[in-house]
Amino acid sequence: MDGKTELIQSLSLCPLFRGVDATAIKRLFSEIRYTVRSYKKGNYVIMRGDTYNRLHILLKGQVAAQMQGNTGKIVTVETLRAPDILASAILFSPDPSIPVSVYTVFDSEILTLSKQELIRLFRTEPSVLEAYLEDMGSKVAILSEKFRLSHFSTIKEKVAGFLLDQASKQKSETLRLPYTKETLAEIFGVTRPALSRVFSQMETEGHFRSRGRKVRIEKDSLMSVLDEAN
Amino acid sequence: MDGKTELIQSLSLCPLFRGVDATAIKRLFSEIRYTVRSYKKGNYVIMRGDTYNRLHILLKGQVAAQMQGNTGKIVTVETLRAPDILASAILFSPDPSIPVSVYTVFDSEILTLSKQELIRLFRTEPSVLEAYLEDMGSKVAILSEKFRLSHFSTIKEKVAGFLLDQASKQKSETLRLPYTKETLAEIFGVTRPALSRVFSQMETEGHFRSRGRKVRIEKDSLMSVLDEAN
Repeated sequence: MDGKTELIQSLSLCPLFRGVDATAIKRLFSEIRYTVRSYKKGNYVIMRGDTYNRLHILLKGQVAAQMQGNTGKIVTVETLRAPDILASAILFSPDPSIPVSVYTVFDSEILTLSKQELIRLFRTEPSVLEAYLEDMGSKVAILSEKFRLSHFSTIKEKVAGFLLDQASKQKSETLRLPYTKETLAEIFGVTRPALSRVFSQMETEGHFRSRGRKVRIEKDSLMSVLDEAN
Repeated sequence: MDGKTELIQSLSLCPLFRGVDATAIKRLFSEIRYTVRSYKKGNYVIMRGDTYNRLHILLKGQVAAQMQGNTGKIVTVETLRAPDILASAILFSPDPSIPVSVYTVFDSEILTLSKQELIRLFRTEPSVLEAYLEDMGSKVAILSEKFRLSHFSTIKEKVAGFLLDQASKQKSETLRLPYTKETLAEIFGVTRPALSRVFSQMETEGHFRSRGRKVRIEKDSLMSVLDEAN
């Protein structure tokens, strides 16, 4: 398998191109300018404060994004596995200096293309645009929830606050979780296993019953979780 | 002036169409399907929990977005003056149920168009797409900062945390504020006058000196603001 075939294969697995078949991806990438670079494990791809003016698509490998807290402590805020796109929103932010450093956890390969070329891609293939907008929309939704729940101190309170809000929005005590467990873990700022533990514990305690993404809440019981917090 | 001319005039002042001249806007809106509705002051345009599947463009008037806190208290989270777009990110979110209710503060006129028509608009006029992406990018940037600063309790601490972070990103103690004062007020969750008061007070206390968007920070002095907080 040559480099080009491998590239197309990686791209066709990337969420950004989920609506586009391999032939169309091949045609798209014969028409735009892009570069591909390989990085050995443990190298920095992007340094915090850099101007982020090219979209980075992780073709192979795994990267981690690090942030520096105000106390100077460095924390990993996100891990991305190939294939995926990096910092979709920052590319179009009024402050394009990237708040995180990105380094390779394993040997990785990254394709980059300019904003202008990306916009050409959007025009040629509207489903790529829709996938990009959804990626950004999803980031806004996650951040809004994180911010809204930030005044709760424990995961249990955050889960209670989230479920009560969903029940109110969905106007029913039987609700459908609008996010995957991965996204919920991100919203609550915990790992997936930690979230599962809290969910099981709360279910055992009778705060709600769930089956897949369907949840039947016990409203008074969840309210009492929040009352105890105050 | 007829209704159509007035419509084009409102749209040409809307941030979404800042790169498009009136003639082009007229042509664009003769090719897509949209509806325009008038609302008397004090009416609800959108109810919390509704599925937001059409972009709303406020042509005339003023609207306010309300949210219900977990304690049941209703708070106004944002006020929008015409012409502007509503909830750009939610339109493409995986959870399209809108978290706010929107009501008219004055008599208003709102144009709506479907996601599909919006995407057609993006394809015909790339500068509209760029403006939309920037609007979303800016929301992500604001929310990220709000979340990052949410563990600080006072505005003074938030300002100190923000300026120290910018200095670190810009690798200099003389930095340029990447946002307007309006956006900064939104990030810190205060009104513009309240932000100006805190800025003046902190400047008088010697934490930094500023001129327009240029700020020279006194690093140790700002760090002491955060130290006191812990």
